[in-house]
Amino acid sequence: MTSTPPSRSQEWLYGRNAVWEALHGRRRHRQLLVAQGTEHHGRVQAIMTTAMERGIRVHLVPRHQLEQYVGQVNHQGVLLETSAYPYVHLDVILAQSHRRPILVLDHLQDPQNVATLMRTADAVAVAGIIIPERRTAGITPAVVNASAGAVEHLLVAQVVNLSRALGELREAGYWLVALEPGPTAHNLFTADIPTPVGLLVGSEGKGLAPTLLRQADVQVALPMRGHVSSLNAAVAGSIALYELLRRESL
Amino acid sequence: MTSTPPSRSQEWLYGRNAVWEALHGRRRHRQLLVAQGTEHHGRVQAIMTTAMERGIRVHLVPRHQLEQYVGQVNHQGVLLETSAYPYVHLDVILAQSHRRPILVLDHLQDPQNVATLMRTADAVAVAGIIIPERRTAGITPAVVNASAGAVEHLLVAQVVNLSRALGELREAGYWLVALEPGPTAHNLFTADIPTPVGLLVGSEGKGLAPTLLRQADVQVALPMRGHVSSLNAAVAGSIALYELLRRESL
Repeated sequence: MTSTPPSRSQEWLYGRNAVWEALHGRRRHRQLLVAQGTEHHGRVQAIMTTAMERGIRVHLVPRHQLEQYVGQVNHQGVLLETSAYPYVHLDVILAQSHRRPILVLDHLQDPQNVATLMRTADAVAVAGIIIPERRTAGITPAVVNASAGAVEHLLVAQVVNLSRALGELREAGYWLVALEPGPTAHNLFTADIPTPVGLLVGSEGKGLAPTLLRQADVQVALPMRGHVSSLNAAVAGSIALYELLRRESL
Repeated sequence: MTSTPPSRSQEWLYGRNAVWEALHGRRRHRQLLVAQGTEHHGRVQAIMTTAMERGIRVHLVPRHQLEQYVGQVNHQGVLLETSAYPYVHLDVILAQSHRRPILVLDHLQDPQNVATLMRTADAVAVAGIIIPERRTAGITPAVVNASAGAVEHLLVAQVVNLSRALGELREAGYWLVALEPGPTAHNLFTADIPTPVGLLVGSEGKGLAPTLLRQADVQVALPMRGHVSSLNAAVAGSIALYELLRRESL
């Protein structure tokens, strides 16, 4: 049985992937709610078993009760009450980075884009992610869900001053690579990119703040051969993350 | 002045990028509606000027009138009444392919994923895209909007029988490359991929139909180093499209 008291820092995660990954992540869990009628689904059974093994209370409840907590979302019959998302200090990321890439997000306000990018960041095993407290979507239950639970395994630092965080990255030996179209940008695939890399990704509309762009050691962009002049920010960032992974195995 | 009669095949495109790209695409346009109060915005002015140059009627109307046609979407003050999306025959794509990649989508039902992937397909200048009439989202105004208008410049063939279409691709000299995780999949970045390429992309959940997978010459997948075992389908497909572009310049 968990002894976590109810508090404002509790939140409800929903969706089978999100709940499954959270059960294998770093949060403390309070209770699992399962909608009656879904308890015989294989994935839901695995979630229930895992929760019980960890001493988490499991309640079978009418479906409408789940919606009282999370509204009309695609909860797939499972809700997990957990502690707030466990952001870490940038120091923690740097201390265990093993020269893996670090992803830095700026101005990314669409939770779906943040989630997609974090899912790719997990897939390429970044050391961690840095997001500013303002101007970028935080890790809400919607982001956890849209990332298929990937954020539960990531180290994410939320910082007040992104510019200062970049300074710390550089002091730790990281090269700052800005993914941002522009006349001075090098082709991502042919650019000389020293490692380890701190990869800066901005939004489609606003891009990176000029002060951050000036801090970058290298500016790269994807070659564009079509009619439309920009890519979805999460797609562009994901392609850059995989290009870094590809280079590692050369 | 346009003489297109109103009909059920007319549709309303919305959003500044979507309308702008459509004005430079292949559809016939009937009228442009601009919400009063937005007509002084630079991008909207450019849209109005372009429409008038092309003899398209432009009407300034109250904002609520736009919503009567398209509902509560992010129309950004502009609506363009156009003919239906101009799908092409697969023959047309093959006749002007110049050995550029052809993208084949299966089971992709999320319009947002279809739109994102089509935007990347434009960016890497594919010869065209093949989608099945069933099981995959078609080119609705929502897809046009979410693709930032990119689909207006793409050649898209909607086919009844995807398996037969793959046969035609192969007869035209294309190699069929399936992007699909599995024990027999090669690493996308190190696989031997002959050109020209017909790239098959399925959905996250269902993947490619087994009959299509069997038709493929090569099966590739992205290396996965994280905790979560799959990527967003549009992201995975976009990374594969850019890998093909990267190889072209080697």
